[in-house]
Amino acid sequence: MAKRPFPLSKVYTLLEPGPVVLLTTSRKGKPNIMTMSWLTMMEFEPPLIGCIVSDLNYSFKNLSATKECVINIPSADILDKVVACGNSTGAKTDKFAKFNLTAKPAAKVKAPLIDECFANLECRVVDTRMVNKYSLFVLEAVQAWIDPKIKNPRTVHHRGKGSFMIAGETVKTKSKMK
Amino acid sequence: MAKRPFPLSKVYTLLEPGPVVLLTTSRKGKPNIMTMSWLTMMEFEPPLIGCIVSDLNYSFKNLSATKECVINIPSADILDKVVACGNSTGAKTDKFAKFNLTAKPAAKVKAPLIDECFANLECRVVDTRMVNKYSLFVLEAVQAWIDPKIKNPRTVHHRGKGSFMIAGETVKTKSKMK
Repeated sequence: MAKRPFPLSKVYTLLEPGPVVLLTTSRKGKPNIMTMSWLTMMEFEPPLIGCIVSDLNYSFKNLSATKECVINIPSADILDKVVACGNSTGAKTDKFAKFNLTAKPAAKVKAPLIDECFANLECRVVDTRMVNKYSLFVLEAVQAWIDPKIKNPRTVHHRGKGSFMIAGETVKTKSKMK
Repeated sequence: MAKRPFPLSKVYTLLEPGPVVLLTTSRKGKPNIMTMSWLTMMEFEPPLIGCIVSDLNYSFKNLSATKECVINIPSADILDKVVACGNSTGAKTDKFAKFNLTAKPAAKVKAPLIDECFANLECRVVDTRMVNKYSLFVLEAVQAWIDPKIKNPRTVHHRGKGSFMIAGETVKTKSKMK
């Protein structure tokens, strides 16, 4: 996909709706992908994001060691790959190769961008004090990318046990909220 | 609405899709409502939820002082009230009265349930160590309620600047994820 830089001040508009994301990490030249739903915005700018990565996940070691990752946002077009990444472990599987996903180099971190995702947020870990107790990493988005053709993405939202809600219509209101 | 208790082990299925929620608090007999999108699951059971409540919000004082709240999940039927709650402050407005919302007593906390919401999660604050730096409260859901008639709720998801995505269709996959 041909992507353009996306303003860091608008990163919250991508994550607030609550999409399932694909977290990429890379260590010793070996990239991995983890399907993730437990994350929240914590600050507008610089954009801070809190995410839970359990030490049961293969990505935990990568994230802890490299302190870098990319949050990739998929649309429903690749829901089968999102599910496949969630059903397998990087300990045994090269998920890029097996699920036919394309790793592109990021600008500011070593973790790769997933080309098939419509948005990518390059992140650095900025606080690990809640990792021991809660597996909570605080990330700062340092570079964001978007496919400018996509206006109202059909993101996927996890309802549990195999069910996903697909993003429906977008409505405009007179909200004064940011 | 006639609601039934909802298993605490399934609370994650309500919050993982990323809906906008209405946070209720109550102090000195005066309840308030805050529209909120910055929250994430942190643990399955007991269900832990991390949420950002800024000290610029009127609800911050209530939550800090009482350490109790309710997370109420609205559907698109009351989007106008969700927006109205977000556009006003409890310092000046009795939002229950002004926006014609019904406060019902909760079972385990003093904050009220919003009757018009299809699900309500009674919560206690269990960790305030990240409040000073990040305005992050860790909540434990201690009692959950649901309208059993609603299967795939038309939740609302904030895209920013007045735009909301309305939950679309739900699809089933062969995901083995919880």
